Amino acid sequence: MTALLAGPLLTDLYEITMAAGYWKHRIQEPATFSVFVRDPDHKRNFFVAAGLETILQELACYRFQKDDLDYLNSLNMFDPGFLDALRELRFSGDVVAMPEGTFYFPDEPLMEITAPLIEAQLVETLVLNTVGIASLIASKAARCTHAAAGLPLVDFALRRTHGPDAGDHVARSTYLAGFAATSNVRAGKRFGIPVSGTMAHAFVTAFDSELDAFRAYAASFPDATIFLIDTYDTIAGARHAATVALEMQQQGRHALGVRLDSGDMIALSRDVRRILDEAGLSEMKIYASSNFDEFKIADMVKARAPIDAFGVGTRVGVSADAPYLDIVYKLARLGNRDIRKLSPGKVTLAGQKQVFRRLDGQGRYQEDLIGCREETIPGAQPLLTTVMRGGCRLHPAKSLEDIRQQFETQAACLPERYKTIHRHEAYPVKISPRLQSLQP
Amino acid sequence: MTALLAGPLLTDLYEITMAAGYWKHRIQEPATFSVFVRDPDHKRNFFVAAGLETILQELACYRFQKDDLDYLNSLNMFDPGFLDALRELRFSGDVVAMPEGTFYFPDEPLMEITAPLIEAQLVETLVLNTVGIASLIASKAARCTHAAAGLPLVDFALRRTHGPDAGDHVARSTYLAGFAATSNVRAGKRFGIPVSGTMAHAFVTAFDSELDAFRAYAASFPDATIFLIDTYDTIAGARHAATVALEMQQQGRHALGVRLDSGDMIALSRDVRRILDEAGLSEMKIYASSNFDEFKIADMVKARAPIDAFGVGTRVGVSADAPYLDIVYKLARLGNRDIRKLSPGKVTLAGQKQVFRRLDGQGRYQEDLIGCREETIPGAQPLLTTVMRGGCRLHPAKSLEDIRQQFETQAACLPERYKTIHRHEAYPVKISPRLQSLQP
Repeated sequence: MTALLAGPLLTDLYEITMAAGYWKHRIQEPATFSVFVRDPDHKRNFFVAAGLETILQELACYRFQKDDLDYLNSLNMFDPGFLDALRELRFSGDVVAMPEGTFYFPDEPLMEITAPLIEAQLVETLVLNTVGIASLIASKAARCTHAAAGLPLVDFALRRTHGPDAGDHVARSTYLAGFAATSNVRAGKRFGIPVSGTMAHAFVTAFDSELDAFRAYAASFPDATIFLIDTYDTIAGARHAATVALEMQQQGRHALGVRLDSGDMIALSRDVRRILDEAGLSEMKIYASSNFDEFKIADMVKARAPIDAFGVGTRVGVSADAPYLDIVYKLARLGNRDIRKLSPGKVTLAGQKQVFRRLDGQGRYQEDLIGCREETIPGAQPLLTTVMRGGCRLHPAKSLEDIRQQFETQAACLPERYKTIHRHEAYPVKISPRLQSLQP
Repeated sequence: MTALLAGPLLTDLYEITMAAGYWKHRIQEPATFSVFVRDPDHKRNFFVAAGLETILQELACYRFQKDDLDYLNSLNMFDPGFLDALRELRFSGDVVAMPEGTFYFPDEPLMEITAPLIEAQLVETLVLNTVGIASLIASKAARCTHAAAGLPLVDFALRRTHGPDAGDHVARSTYLAGFAATSNVRAGKRFGIPVSGTMAHAFVTAFDSELDAFRAYAASFPDATIFLIDTYDTIAGARHAATVALEMQQQGRHALGVRLDSGDMIALSRDVRRILDEAGLSEMKIYASSNFDEFKIADMVKARAPIDAFGVGTRVGVSADAPYLDIVYKLARLGNRDIRKLSPGKVTLAGQKQVFRRLDGQGRYQEDLIGCREETIPGAQPLLTTVMRGGCRLHPAKSLEDIRQQFETQAACLPERYKTIHRHEAYPVKISPRLQSLQP
């Protein structure tokens, strides 16, 4: 993974003014902040951890550059001594986190950061910004792979993601959560994700006829031909595709399939399947890409529409039904004090924590307990592990393939009733008696 | 503005496979693509153009680097001759566009790109990705400034935007559309936007008491003190803020105000206003930041809640009610042929176009006509101007302040009935008879 670092200026100004306040008052105690997601409206039955690799890269290289400090100085807000301190500042803290690909639930810390207060405060916005988008999309994508019941999904979202970074992270998070490929070439290069794509309507309209366009594409990519058939009329397009596929057979080549991109997907996929089958092209697959999300995919699967793979774009790439995670970063311990915030509806659990997961006899997830960091709960797995100590990473970066495998393994362990995309039963998350007794 | 270019690999793979098809078949005619927004669900009464500066920078520096070409070669899909052509390729086309800050409406081209087909095709995803997020957020932000009826708004969205780029573009687009400042320090540096921010709950909880925290902050930033008063109890917090503000007065300093961040904003703002006024602190302002968007801001204004400024975050930074623009890039002309696509519900206007705006006697916007590029419509203003010719920019970048002024001027010209945030009357957009006659 190529590093494209956001850097320490990617922060809300108040992180820096607070840091200046701590500096002036010499508050240098170690602080622990918990990162967790609130979901009071129950928009999601589960979340999937992602973005850890990105934030570890940021923290490992965290430093204010000269032009950053010049800019801060130009604001005429900060003591020169504080800016000197920023110049020398490196992230020297510890990070405990759930591995990427872990399923987690509301209020469970997916990460805790412990560092001298100034450092831990400064990185807040950066942590939330990078982990937020990654986990938001991994969670949305996991719902899609569940709905697709084994059919391959390809990320087509790039044109409508919220900018380039978002596009790359949508590709990575969807792949992590079981997608087969992405259309995003930069993400393919950056993360080693398989890339996929053939033609758009512009290609078809650039030729004098649809048949000409299909023949031209087949001549250019005889081993990877998928015909987009809805530019003029999907049924006529399917017949044109069959014609060219049969011509290809004369030369020992096989078209991979056709793509539907508009109209009634259930009816059209059946009609097109029939046309291809009657032409003796039953090996040609039908790809579909038209505003798919987990709900529309589930409708296709339920109707047994003969669609072999889905291109999934905008609605997943922006998580349209829930376009943000209510992800927060809350001070839980400072020096020897366990701390919680009491604002209405926003209570935070005090203390350094661990999340424990109980499994049943078949290895399926039964319930989670949020406990104290140093607690042990017999028979339950702790989910948070130390990944950075004293500002140094403890392990090399996991490969994206390993993370994807981790996701798949975990997805198999979460009982079906907690994975449904419509209404759902809440997965049980409890507070351990010991952590409860710690609350002020 | 510092260039942080996305580069030509930020594309869907199919742009490159189509380009390879054009290359193989020697289709090198000039093509014109139209960029426009569809809004069949009428989610927005208007849109605001933004992102032009970003895409012009990308196009002016558009080139495949060696490692990009190595990556494409590694896919084993492309003819070496085509990759050689990509190595030499520069964007040599023309761009006509509406200036940033221009109000536009569904189906109106906000940009048209004319270039040899390969080039015009290759840049599609990059154009949509960069212009999309910028215009999405400018449009959302314009609704907020309208709802705020003159009260200042500050962008607080960074922690929940879809990654770092999105954070910067949210800051730029909200500022362009009338926001007063941003919390995003990187965007402040990158775009010259005023930055704003004071303290979070963590700061308050890091001290032994709220009073101690307020005193510490006042000592650090005596000229820019805003107290966050809801960490424990907003009313008690207001009294503590008043206490410290009066202590500051003894030293000739004046606290700027207090910030409310949770609870019933209307009731609390009134109670807090009373506490401050009774303490003789009527100059202290009340800032509010709690899930604000245009709807909640309008509620506050309607109730005459004594709030002086709003921190606007997540819901605007991700445009939560409409998190994507259905922005498209459609082939409209190739060589001498005017082209349109016919897929159901997705008809595209053929030909090179111009958008004309008619004004009434007072300079207010009356109606738009989408016409032919070379048409003139007496008394109507053409909105698209040539900004790039032969791959070269024709003008230096406009300053963000100028763009912001452009927005403000235009906002004053759009009649009130087209600006309401709830239901609305559609602004009239017609097709000129000449353009109509051109449609195949």
